[in-house]
Amino acid sequence: MPLYSARVLVSLRPSVLDPAGEATRAAASRLGVDGVSKLRIGKAVEVELEAPNPQAAREQLELLSDRLLANPVIENWTLELKDDVSAGA
Amino acid sequence: MPLYSARVLVSLRPSVLDPAGEATRAAASRLGVDGVSKLRIGKAVEVELEAPNPQAAREQLELLSDRLLANPVIENWTLELKDDVSAGA
Repeated sequence: MPLYSARVLVSLRPSVLDPAGEATRAAASRLGVDGVSKLRIGKAVEVELEAPNPQAAREQLELLSDRLLANPVIENWTLELKDDVSAGA
Repeated sequence: MPLYSARVLVSLRPSVLDPAGEATRAAASRLGVDGVSKLRIGKAVEVELEAPNPQAAREQLELLSDRLLANPVIENWTLELKDDVSAGA
């Protein structure tokens, strides 16, 4: 069965505060890096999944993202699906 | 001053265990998504930074990534820098 590689990016919704990101932004300026106008920390989930075809892979990854990887009340997610990677990489 | 938008992806080194990822992989199979052969959870940091030119932006982001965003003992990071985004998007 083909192997698909995907990355799910989970980010806080714009209306949700990000205290860790704010703290990191403050630390950046103490490190001498000024000019950071935005810094928000999200999750990047790397997944490898066997599926019969790209459509099935995408459906399963969307289910995972909605139900397990992101909390839809406070987070958005985007899916980047690569083609069959079982040969080669 | 131009505004640069960047994403820093921070992932655990391959030799480092990822218990949260393993737990999520087990939960995926309980959810009916079989065939997940790998699932590792990292961080995706979205940064907007003012800098005089792309080289300066990249240097400052590399400093941030090395010193603040990733723990080089257990994590790798990669930087995706977009061009000046102050006009338009």
